Amino acid sequence: MKLLRVGTAGAETPALVDAEGVLRDLSGVVADIDGTLLADDVALGRIRAAAEAGELPALDATGLRVGPPLARIGKIVCIGLNYHDHARETGAEPPAEPVIFFKAADTVVGPYDTVLVPRRSVKTDWEVELAVVIGRTARYLSDDEDPLAYVAGYAVAHDVSEREFQIERGGTWDKGKNCETFNPLGPWLVTADEVDDPQDLSLKLWVNGELKQDGTTAEQIFPVREVVRYVSQFMTLYPGDVINTGTPAGVAMGAPEPKPFLRGGDVVELEIEGLGRQRQEFKDA
Amino acid sequence: MKLLRVGTAGAETPALVDAEGVLRDLSGVVADIDGTLLADDVALGRIRAAAEAGELPALDATGLRVGPPLARIGKIVCIGLNYHDHARETGAEPPAEPVIFFKAADTVVGPYDTVLVPRRSVKTDWEVELAVVIGRTARYLSDDEDPLAYVAGYAVAHDVSEREFQIERGGTWDKGKNCETFNPLGPWLVTADEVDDPQDLSLKLWVNGELKQDGTTAEQIFPVREVVRYVSQFMTLYPGDVINTGTPAGVAMGAPEPKPFLRGGDVVELEIEGLGRQRQEFKDA
Repeated sequence: MKLLRVGTAGAETPALVDAEGVLRDLSGVVADIDGTLLADDVALGRIRAAAEAGELPALDATGLRVGPPLARIGKIVCIGLNYHDHARETGAEPPAEPVIFFKAADTVVGPYDTVLVPRRSVKTDWEVELAVVIGRTARYLSDDEDPLAYVAGYAVAHDVSEREFQIERGGTWDKGKNCETFNPLGPWLVTADEVDDPQDLSLKLWVNGELKQDGTTAEQIFPVREVVRYVSQFMTLYPGDVINTGTPAGVAMGAPEPKPFLRGGDVVELEIEGLGRQRQEFKDA
Repeated sequence: MKLLRVGTAGAETPALVDAEGVLRDLSGVVADIDGTLLADDVALGRIRAAAEAGELPALDATGLRVGPPLARIGKIVCIGLNYHDHARETGAEPPAEPVIFFKAADTVVGPYDTVLVPRRSVKTDWEVELAVVIGRTARYLSDDEDPLAYVAGYAVAHDVSEREFQIERGGTWDKGKNCETFNPLGPWLVTADEVDDPQDLSLKLWVNGELKQDGTTAEQIFPVREVVRYVSQFMTLYPGDVINTGTPAGVAMGAPEPKPFLRGGDVVELEIEGLGRQRQEFKDA
């Protein structure tokens, strides 16, 4: 299923895009799309049954804002340098084990919302990423458990990053990853049953119409299943948590000088195979 | 005011400790203690008036669990190496600007709850910290604004840390800061009007009865007002966000070999002048 949330920011209602691409209202079936829903197989089954029975009213999508497809996000765990090609372009050695940093849930906006270039920023950069949404509590997963059984679904995430704040300001990466609006998410939360192989998805990102990133999750150093298992050894993952699994090559930081960092007025579009497409206009904060 | 939340985990009710030390029920006045309440001067005034008029029913504290004093915490921004004496003991240069890392809100437990030593941990460490609770949205604070006007109150935080995960596992510090139960908070959220000077508070921590940390917030490299202003340049602080402002000298990592890292069965107590006292028994996860 393709789950989403539509309406004004902070007052979104749950919806679904059906097999014919028609937007359907879910507000009569579930209160919202959040970790509680994703952990509730009965409620998910109710949505599926209502969709298959054709009982969900169509919604007029005209002019309707699309919000992030997940409410009440817990934590957003991010994996750094997780693509062979991206590690090469940044001049970093491929990490021996996953690099973890965080984005705060309050950085999440809808897939078409405006993204703000922070004040005094000179190195705002883009990163298309596969977001993994957790559906079951994952804690110290053992080698014989299937980590993908803890994944409720997948979404497109834009891990917007300020490289000067991230790297040159004497701290850990979090300083350049948590500016307001820095995590567009969506349009859809695609349930895991519709993603045959999370390690075989193409990811693309364009800036002002020019293709900048053109990768595949096959290039991930630590695939989704290893990432979920690994993270669960250090922290407990709860339903409604998100993992941004890293970005392929092609970011501004990896380009020759003068590096094409983002400025107000730039337009970024990004998509992942089967998970939909985002478009953001950047504006000065 | 000393605000707190009592009851079983996840089902706490709001309460207050009055000037005579009597526990008072707030559930008839406000729904909970969270960012929404802290941003609401009218609701805070209602609590104050009810307390002063003696209208709040007393609660029997016997056997009552104390939870964290804040519900629905947004993000927890942590400041690293923020005490001159702690920077010296770790062999680090005092940072030129604040070091920022994160703890997830799901690591927060009550002040007397059990803390879990993570599996495969050999370097679990303690850190008493002054927590700052945000009451007004702080975004790009200018030099002529008073950052302390954005602070709703203060609390004791225990920034439990796994040093191997934090420093030796090839990532940013977050990996060693986000194990479950790693952020005991409370017992009270003391409103800012009751803290004359946040830079003149003594902080103490004992392990199994032995005094390990004995510091003062006067040693902070970046005082609270500078921290709030600084963080607001990189990310927006919302009501219900928390800043853990760093720890003074005396952690296990700074001790001579063999360093006395925590093990199941150890008991840690910590207190900050005017903000109350915590006590945790550590157990193996």
